[in-house]
Amino acid sequence: MRPTSLITSTANPKIKLARKLRERKERQESGLAYIEGLRIVIEAAQHGAAIQTLLLAPHLLSSEKGRSIAEDLLNRGAEVLEVSDEVFKSLALKDDPQGIAAIVSQSWQRLDEVHLQTGEVWVALEAVADPGNLGTILRTCDGVGAKGVILLDNSTDPYDPTAMRASMGALFTQKLVKSSFETFSTWKTAQKIPLVGTSGAAKNDYHSFQYPGLFILFMGNERHGLSEKAMTLCDQVVRIPMHGQSDSLNLAVATAVVLYEIYNHQRDAIGEKKG
Amino acid sequence: MRPTSLITSTANPKIKLARKLRERKERQESGLAYIEGLRIVIEAAQHGAAIQTLLLAPHLLSSEKGRSIAEDLLNRGAEVLEVSDEVFKSLALKDDPQGIAAIVSQSWQRLDEVHLQTGEVWVALEAVADPGNLGTILRTCDGVGAKGVILLDNSTDPYDPTAMRASMGALFTQKLVKSSFETFSTWKTAQKIPLVGTSGAAKNDYHSFQYPGLFILFMGNERHGLSEKAMTLCDQVVRIPMHGQSDSLNLAVATAVVLYEIYNHQRDAIGEKKG
Repeated sequence: MRPTSLITSTANPKIKLARKLRERKERQESGLAYIEGLRIVIEAAQHGAAIQTLLLAPHLLSSEKGRSIAEDLLNRGAEVLEVSDEVFKSLALKDDPQGIAAIVSQSWQRLDEVHLQTGEVWVALEAVADPGNLGTILRTCDGVGAKGVILLDNSTDPYDPTAMRASMGALFTQKLVKSSFETFSTWKTAQKIPLVGTSGAAKNDYHSFQYPGLFILFMGNERHGLSEKAMTLCDQVVRIPMHGQSDSLNLAVATAVVLYEIYNHQRDAIGEKKG
Repeated sequence: MRPTSLITSTANPKIKLARKLRERKERQESGLAYIEGLRIVIEAAQHGAAIQTLLLAPHLLSSEKGRSIAEDLLNRGAEVLEVSDEVFKSLALKDDPQGIAAIVSQSWQRLDEVHLQTGEVWVALEAVADPGNLGTILRTCDGVGAKGVILLDNSTDPYDPTAMRASMGALFTQKLVKSSFETFSTWKTAQKIPLVGTSGAAKNDYHSFQYPGLFILFMGNERHGLSEKAMTLCDQVVRIPMHGQSDSLNLAVATAVVLYEIYNHQRDAIGEKKG
């Protein structure tokens, strides 16, 4: 690797920027995010995320893979900065940091760039509040081969460190769209895209329901579920049956239960055609 | 409600105990737990949890339901202590506490008290590490009407405040068993109880798999899945297919996806019998 001078001051502008990116405001204004750890940096690099600056703490970075990723990114034109262990630890989100982190550009698609194809799965989230839930939903979306997630109005930020950690790199495999409810509503109506919501009060059982070939799964907020206006926008609403005392599931769990059911329906349909 | 004197000192022994119960060591030694918030106290009371001491901050407790629960518990012989807002806030796990909390006895079953009936669902967790995951799993278990959870060796504590919050009261609807791996292994073998594990490397697809009428679902650790010795103990292992880049799902999500699949199989079987 090309030798670079070692950053030993936490007052270095890039280090200050990396630290500031923990705050949503800074992320929103800059369009950047701070990612940390070998796995997520590799995922970001593999999925073509725009890595602006790679931060390496050579003494902490024991992994050969990490070094080769750094080499590769350097060749691709990314800025690679070596920092002292102390500086890296001052930034680190984890207690036992792996010595590799990056400042990346956030990647967002516009709603009018989204063109659903039959068989594709998209999830719209009305107001997911918990970054861990959002990250877990992204991870599950990747698991079922979904295309992306549309985040409405008051949803939390997928580039929040907790969301990124929970997504286990799936952040970089899913298309991300931000939209106001109004824009989403207009777009959905104009494009005639069926919207399938979930609610404990729905009549359709999510298991016996016949999902359309093309649709968006619409999930509400952790506490309140889908709002009234969101329910009105839905073409169909399905219910996950609850057997016990609880009246709802965790949001990431509910999303996963429906996504895997849809996935199984799709697999069954292909099996039936083949059979 | 019977008037009681107001506790205004954080040095009061009961207040000190409540605070100490955040630590696992204290919970283990005392067999007690500290629960906070109207919903969980109500769930605990409704499911017959042994509430030793109810802590009320009258000015914070705006809910009529909370007052009537307090009244009821007082009549059942629980100690009811009124504390000042300041004392309550010094204990509170939340920023905006509801003014109601309790010290409860933990409730555990012994493994030799567990007698599985056909159609009952039990989950064994080898080494769940994250209390939020454990709480979420309990919530999902309640959702599908499962009977209980068997926690092996290195599992986290369901009475951890984060686990209890995530369980949304389901902690009190599920039977909880703690066991060493060896005891579990001996018991399972003697009782001839089929154990169905999950692994990304398994041949059986969890969706097409024919689940036995009576079995325990066995889930591994967040990072490592089921250990080798745990895999050896399994009679069958199923795989949740993964479509994207990720090689695994969040543990609470994976457990939920399989539990709801089992639930659907059971519902389908009943439907077929009826049909």
